[in-house]
Amino acid sequence: MVSRVERRVIFAETDAMRIVYYANYLQYFEIGRAEFFREFLAPFTDYIDRGLYLAVTETAVRYHKPARYDDRLVIETRLTRLGRASLKMSYMIAHKESKALISTGMTGHALLDEEGRVLRFEKDFRESLKVLLSDSPHDIALKARARTA
Amino acid sequence: MVSRVERRVIFAETDAMRIVYYANYLQYFEIGRAEFFREFLAPFTDYIDRGLYLAVTETAVRYHKPARYDDRLVIETRLTRLGRASLKMSYMIAHKESKALISTGMTGHALLDEEGRVLRFEKDFRESLKVLLSDSPHDIALKARARTA
Amino acid sequence: MVSRVERRVIFAETDAMRIVYYANYLQYFEIGRAEFFREFLAPFTDYIDRGLYLAVTETAVRYHKPARYDDRLVIETRLTRLGRASLKMSYMIAHKESKALISTGMTGHALLDEEGRVLRFEKDFRESLKVLLSDSPHDIALKARARTA
Amino acid sequence: MVSRVERRVIFAETDAMRIVYYANYLQYFEIGRAEFFREFLAPFTDYIDRGLYLAVTETAVRYHKPARYDDRLVIETRLTRLGRASLKMSYMIAHKESKALISTGMTGHALLDEEGRVLRFEKDFRESLKVLLSDSPHDIALKARARTA
Repeated sequence: MVSRVERRVIFAETDAMRIVYYANYLQYFEIGRAEFFREFLAPFTDYIDRGLYLAVTETAVRYHKPARYDDRLVIETRLTRLGRASLKMSYMIAHKESKALISTGMTGHALLDEEGRVLRFEKDFRESLKVLLSDSPHDIALKARARTA
Repeated sequence: MVSRVERRVIFAETDAMRIVYYANYLQYFEIGRAEFFREFLAPFTDYIDRGLYLAVTETAVRYHKPARYDDRLVIETRLTRLGRASLKMSYMIAHKESKALISTGMTGHALLDEEGRVLRFEKDFRESLKVLLSDSPHDIALKARARTA
Repeated sequence: MVSRVERRVIFAETDAMRIVYYANYLQYFEIGRAEFFREFLAPFTDYIDRGLYLAVTETAVRYHKPARYDDRLVIETRLTRLGRASLKMSYMIAHKESKALISTGMTGHALLDEEGRVLRFEKDFRESLKVLLSDSPHDIALKARARTA
Repeated sequence: MVSRVERRVIFAETDAMRIVYYANYLQYFEIGRAEFFREFLAPFTDYIDRGLYLAVTETAVRYHKPARYDDRLVIETRLTRLGRASLKMSYMIAHKESKALISTGMTGHALLDEEGRVLRFEKDFRESLKVLLSDSPHDIALKARARTA
């Protein structure tokens, strides 16, 4: 399953190279992740209300083409791995009009309680996540690179 | 009393107009405010540990000259008003080398507890703040403008 | 004339007080301003392509209630003053569901060319702006405060 | 060669989980990278003045422990790979007092001219970079993970 959400670049997100600052793609990934959960499971606020947090353990981004002020971006988000207490999300950002690929990336997450302790997914929750799993274009590219490195 | 702290502009703080994005001066004001308290009273973390928060109720900024990537800025901070449950801070940001005035501004604050209820300053705390009061170049300019408007 | 645009709060915009960081309201104002121009005049990119920039000369914000993670905000934007080479915009941000007022503010702008020189509005452009003028709830409040100060 | 620079966490950099927002580590990496070049070669502004830009082509971060408001961080930066038109930097962020490891990461860069065309390093510049090369703790960890994956 893939969720799609649009976002328009604002000045706040650009830098003096006249392109989106490299850290701000992680904000776009956050938006994609939130909309994936809202669309297929439940909004993050529901989990937070129950004392569950999806902490970020790692992230990776590849920058293919720069995004610029006022560009309309499409953020595609997929769930690409599912462990007992962790999961991975994968992202593709493209220009809405030209379809040009802007960036790909991934984020790794661990399920934590309010005190920061790692939790295992409950069986029902894990089953509802499992049906959402996709292959990740980002991971496929990274694995190919690791093999040839 | 005035505290002075330096800060160098990074790419993250600039925008596609190749100058510091207008919102980011409020980050510089935050830094000035934190260092004022650290230097003359106590670090904010001490107040937070006691359940006290200095919420922002208003802010104003005048942009005199743009700051650019890698500029070294000097942030001057003053306490300019003191009420029973509120205070105002005033800021001046200048280029370190050229001394050119970059921006002036103010922030208004209310003392809150962890549940967001307004608190009065305790007598001792208010006395220790009172001796730090200065006139504000920013307020003087704003009042002059209000009179002539 | 008033333009309305919606925005959902993301984690990136919140801070450790669990509310939207005070500088980030200026990002919401930027979004409101861009949508006002897009709706009633032309997107900012059209002006930038012609070498025209609407620089920010001042800003003021009043924080009425905090906005929190995942809140849906409505940003209302008005053009409230028009000079020969400057203009002022006024903003109101409210919770979409509860209608509670979150913040009000203003930004002052000067028209600049690419070298940062102040330009006067051309007659046609000024006329097209003039018909969009509104009274500003934020300015009315500030003037009342200045009189009683 | 390794450069070290300190940074104190401000509210602007934290989020509603009361920790530093995951994207903001890339700001710390930017600071580390700028200080590495300033210390061992020349400030980025010198390259920009000559029309040279070090664009970011990829980035990766591992989050070991959260950083919190007012924490003092030490950012260590190394140059870990050098190609004909590209290089990689590696970063380690630790708490200044406790020495606890907060995050590790890398950024990949390409040398571009003002029109965004890829440039090869001139021979002298490449030689001056070559003597600065180090092994990367972040890359060593990633390679070990790729082997066992």
